Amino acid sequence: MIAIDWGTSSARAYRLDPAGAIRESRETGSGILHVPPMTFAAALRALVGDWIDAGERRVLLSGMVGSRQGWREVAYRPCPAGIDDLRAGLETVPFEPGVTVRIVPGLSAADEAGIPEVMRGEEVQVFGALAGRREGLLCLPGSHSKWVRVRDGRICGFTTGLTGEAYAALRGHTILGRMMEGEPVPGEAFDAGVRRAQDAGGLLHHLFGTRALGLFGRLSPAEGASYLSGLLIGHDVRENLPPGGGTVDLIGAGPLMTLYARAIAARGGAARSGDADAAARGLALIGEGLAWA
Amino acid sequence: MIAIDWGTSSARAYRLDPAGAIRESRETGSGILHVPPMTFAAALRALVGDWIDAGERRVLLSGMVGSRQGWREVAYRPCPAGIDDLRAGLETVPFEPGVTVRIVPGLSAADEAGIPEVMRGEEVQVFGALAGRREGLLCLPGSHSKWVRVRDGRICGFTTGLTGEAYAALRGHTILGRMMEGEPVPGEAFDAGVRRAQDAGGLLHHLFGTRALGLFGRLSPAEGASYLSGLLIGHDVRENLPPGGGTVDLIGAGPLMTLYARAIAARGGAARSGDADAAARGLALIGEGLAWA
Repeated sequence: MIAIDWGTSSARAYRLDPAGAIRESRETGSGILHVPPMTFAAALRALVGDWIDAGERRVLLSGMVGSRQGWREVAYRPCPAGIDDLRAGLETVPFEPGVTVRIVPGLSAADEAGIPEVMRGEEVQVFGALAGRREGLLCLPGSHSKWVRVRDGRICGFTTGLTGEAYAALRGHTILGRMMEGEPVPGEAFDAGVRRAQDAGGLLHHLFGTRALGLFGRLSPAEGASYLSGLLIGHDVRENLPPGGGTVDLIGAGPLMTLYARAIAARGGAARSGDADAAARGLALIGEGLAWA
Repeated sequence: MIAIDWGTSSARAYRLDPAGAIRESRETGSGILHVPPMTFAAALRALVGDWIDAGERRVLLSGMVGSRQGWREVAYRPCPAGIDDLRAGLETVPFEPGVTVRIVPGLSAADEAGIPEVMRGEEVQVFGALAGRREGLLCLPGSHSKWVRVRDGRICGFTTGLTGEAYAALRGHTILGRMMEGEPVPGEAFDAGVRRAQDAGGLLHHLFGTRALGLFGRLSPAEGASYLSGLLIGHDVRENLPPGGGTVDLIGAGPLMTLYARAIAARGGAARSGDADAAARGLALIGEGLAWA
């Protein structure tokens, strides 16, 4: 089977053996934003044509490829939702004779106030990361960080924060950025930002405090980005980690994983490091129980 | 006397009569960022030379003109601080023979966590707006919004939020801006943002919700900016208005005053509209009791 996590800016393809193990994988910059409408079949061939020619007949896609801007808009499935619900929401798109291409639906939910939440692709990573476990709190750090709650084998709800995008906008386009050099690193300045996020006053006040600390020489340009990152990730963790802590499964890769793990630990939680190929494992689980045409 | 509120991007000059009433006023774009170092005396002459030639001998300056980037760095006075403390911290800068030019110091404070706070210029506006009253909660909306607490005639503390600058960065440089047209206006979308700010979940989550509401067609492009503004101002008010409400004196001018008044009312408070010339009245009060050279 071929499994592809096809997102906005990139696509990651896996060739899986019948047991679901990864035989081969590749990543390209052909995210859906780079694929003109009506040319997704050609993009798929460009991405994994050699695997198809080698005999693969089943292709499962997840992520933004199922959005309005993707190959076909596949309706969100409402939470709570398990793997069976994802299977039930699959849609087949036309491709070459003898090859079946299916897109996994995203999930929708609402928070306590009835404000909608959506995800596309993360739901597959969550089931892949759980690897059969039926309970958990998972976090996918990023531009739009997601905290996902799983009970009895189903995603019962999730919460998204604009954490990463807010960091980039504040760093790049406010007075705060002018007092910062370099990228965030795990260390004392990051920890100070995380601690600050626990104080009263709210994020907007804490942000200005970053500036004030700089003015008074208590935050150096080399420390600024780490402090700001700690502040934002600290707020994200503060709102989403349960009061007593608990264990969080982190999904993803890169420096953000270390930073989130550090912030979660500072709040009394424990972070379990993520499987970078969770999408492949999730797609394998969905494909496993499926009656292919 | 000549009173000048000399800020970063503009300067507002007033000619006051002996009783402190405004005889004349003018505003220029000659904020301190536009005045090269060592040329402040020339900038002052360009701004109010005719008034000096007409016989004015006393000039009182407040605002960023007293910062490191201004005419002279005047040390912050610590809170609590009254008008007498501002007088005690005045510094005289050299100008033309027979004319005395003095700069009012800014104020510093610390919040509960010991993080520093600073203001330059707002302290003068606060005393001007109070017009002799000895108690109050005042709010100066803007890029860096300030909430100032006055007890027994002294500024006992204040809190700054990056509210306006965060709005501009999020509006201009995140995915949220792409779903918005026009400027914030007082109305139902703004109110919905203010209400949303009272919910659990935190600002980062509420920001993402703006996007989700747009995706589901529950927030139109025409409503987006108002909702985002309501969200940020709502968070600012939530953190700074005492539980029970109370009266807030707003200082400033322009559309932000209406929006803040509306958000304060939605939280059970009452807003009193500001005196746009509060700086002139504050400088008059400081000048009044002063022994001029």
